[in-house]
Amino acid sequence: MALAGGIGGARFLRGLRLAAPDAEITVIGNTGDDISLFGLRVCPDLDTVMYTLGGGINEEQGWGRADETFTVKEELAAYGVGPGWFGLGDRDFATHIVRTQMLAAGYPLSAVTEALCDRWKPGVRLIPMTDDQVETHVVIDDPEKGRRAIHFQEWWVRLRASVPARSIAPVGADDAKPAPGVLDAIQDADVVLFPPSNPVVSIGTILSVPGIRDAVAARTVVGVSPIIGGAPVRGMADACLTAIGVETSAAAVAAHYGPDLLDGWLVDETDTDVEVPGIAVRSRPLLMTDERAAADIAGAALDLARELTKDAE
Amino acid sequence: MALAGGIGGARFLRGLRLAAPDAEITVIGNTGDDISLFGLRVCPDLDTVMYTLGGGINEEQGWGRADETFTVKEELAAYGVGPGWFGLGDRDFATHIVRTQMLAAGYPLSAVTEALCDRWKPGVRLIPMTDDQVETHVVIDDPEKGRRAIHFQEWWVRLRASVPARSIAPVGADDAKPAPGVLDAIQDADVVLFPPSNPVVSIGTILSVPGIRDAVAARTVVGVSPIIGGAPVRGMADACLTAIGVETSAAAVAAHYGPDLLDGWLVDETDTDVEVPGIAVRSRPLLMTDERAAADIAGAALDLARELTKDAE
Repeated sequence: MALAGGIGGARFLRGLRLAAPDAEITVIGNTGDDISLFGLRVCPDLDTVMYTLGGGINEEQGWGRADETFTVKEELAAYGVGPGWFGLGDRDFATHIVRTQMLAAGYPLSAVTEALCDRWKPGVRLIPMTDDQVETHVVIDDPEKGRRAIHFQEWWVRLRASVPARSIAPVGADDAKPAPGVLDAIQDADVVLFPPSNPVVSIGTILSVPGIRDAVAARTVVGVSPIIGGAPVRGMADACLTAIGVETSAAAVAAHYGPDLLDGWLVDETDTDVEVPGIAVRSRPLLMTDERAAADIAGAALDLARELTKDAE
Repeated sequence: MALAGGIGGARFLRGLRLAAPDAEITVIGNTGDDISLFGLRVCPDLDTVMYTLGGGINEEQGWGRADETFTVKEELAAYGVGPGWFGLGDRDFATHIVRTQMLAAGYPLSAVTEALCDRWKPGVRLIPMTDDQVETHVVIDDPEKGRRAIHFQEWWVRLRASVPARSIAPVGADDAKPAPGVLDAIQDADVVLFPPSNPVVSIGTILSVPGIRDAVAARTVVGVSPIIGGAPVRGMADACLTAIGVETSAAAVAAHYGPDLLDGWLVDETDTDVEVPGIAVRSRPLLMTDERAAADIAGAALDLARELTKDAE
């Protein structure tokens, strides 16, 4: 099973599905990025996993739907209704309309996600980390409004993380419960994988839900570094790491997870000499240039997990 | 000022605006057809008036937006989410998203309608008959489920009124209050016009809101017959009239309104010998073949209103 954020997580999972076609894969999805826009509930990470594994993703962009149009968004702008900085396409809108209608009818997000996956058939079981509302907020020094907390998406998408984050917090996490099935899936897992997702606002947020970190720590855990050569493979993980005082390096991220949580760590072949006490480090090519490359990385992560499980026996 | 239903009402109003360019026109819109679809609040009659007068209407169809696409609807169908029988286009969806978001934020429908009209600038003041929920229900003998009440739109759009209506009722009307401005607008009006809208489910529903009928009855009221030669000009008003025991004829509709309410009545030139005690009847061409024809009809209604007002002085 795996914890997953957005694009990097989804591409890794597609590789994992290819590398282990007979495995029952459960994915715990990050919901800290979720946001209500135009009265609709948007779950970017869950949808990226669902669309990517379900064959509906915009491949070039990495998020959103293929063959997308933006008529609804243009019309909303014509009404003067924003925000305009979040790119919701017409096909994507339908997902959020269905989700919002089901949530309003009383279904928990986990049931809604299952219903949406009935269409997409991602080949994995996708469960949100929690049915409770957790929203990642970022504290910034706004040039105009002073220090204030904004929604993660506003910082990430509107500001492109250009304003330094003073702190990043999953608001609501303390009182959140893991969604039904989350803890059982972790406990039943042969191995827990951390895809090359953002260690702070994706994996970190999932681990912030009480009970999940402890359950994961009890399993064999192998992670794939999202940092290659001191920079994030994609996205702006460096800005997030800086905010929590962690260096942007494969070694520092592994140390941040720590040996209590992480048993094995895959780093890129260019990251030589990475050593983290208590964590087995292996280096290999980590660029997910295509589905096959992602499968090779996932296979290597599984190999390392088997090796570590065997060692532990 | 005018009471208005959907397509016929909207086209008449466009003519009225042309016939009386300097007049301040207030339109009381029917909301009995409103329906919640996919968790969104849809107000077909208000939107038809708004789009028609605002230049956004699909002219051939008479409802919905011009240059419309149906991506969201197709996606909802792919999720297995219905109903599919109600034709919501992408542009139209944006209107319902904005409306639903504003309603959820606590704005009354009248304020929402005003905000939507900020964009469309229909050149009239459009007020829903009420901010309270009134839903027109139709009792039918369902071949499968027996006698039951269904939403007007299900009868009208899904069944195309093919199943006889046992009765038609504006559910909630008894407890509804006229929206802010409605009674004042009627009281301040030089004349109240009934466009050739459905006498039962459009004009009749508006009049069912307590206070509106009495306020209208106190003014000079001129109506335009929606029936020509024993058949509705468009739509299925005959099925509605039959349900309430009124013959489908220009004379019977005027008699149904009654001389307490109606002062003048325009019938088509082919409807000769229409006489209704207590109501001044004039005949002229009533087909709204284009905007100019609609303006001529509206002009004739205003002329008759002036004549009757003068007589009354």
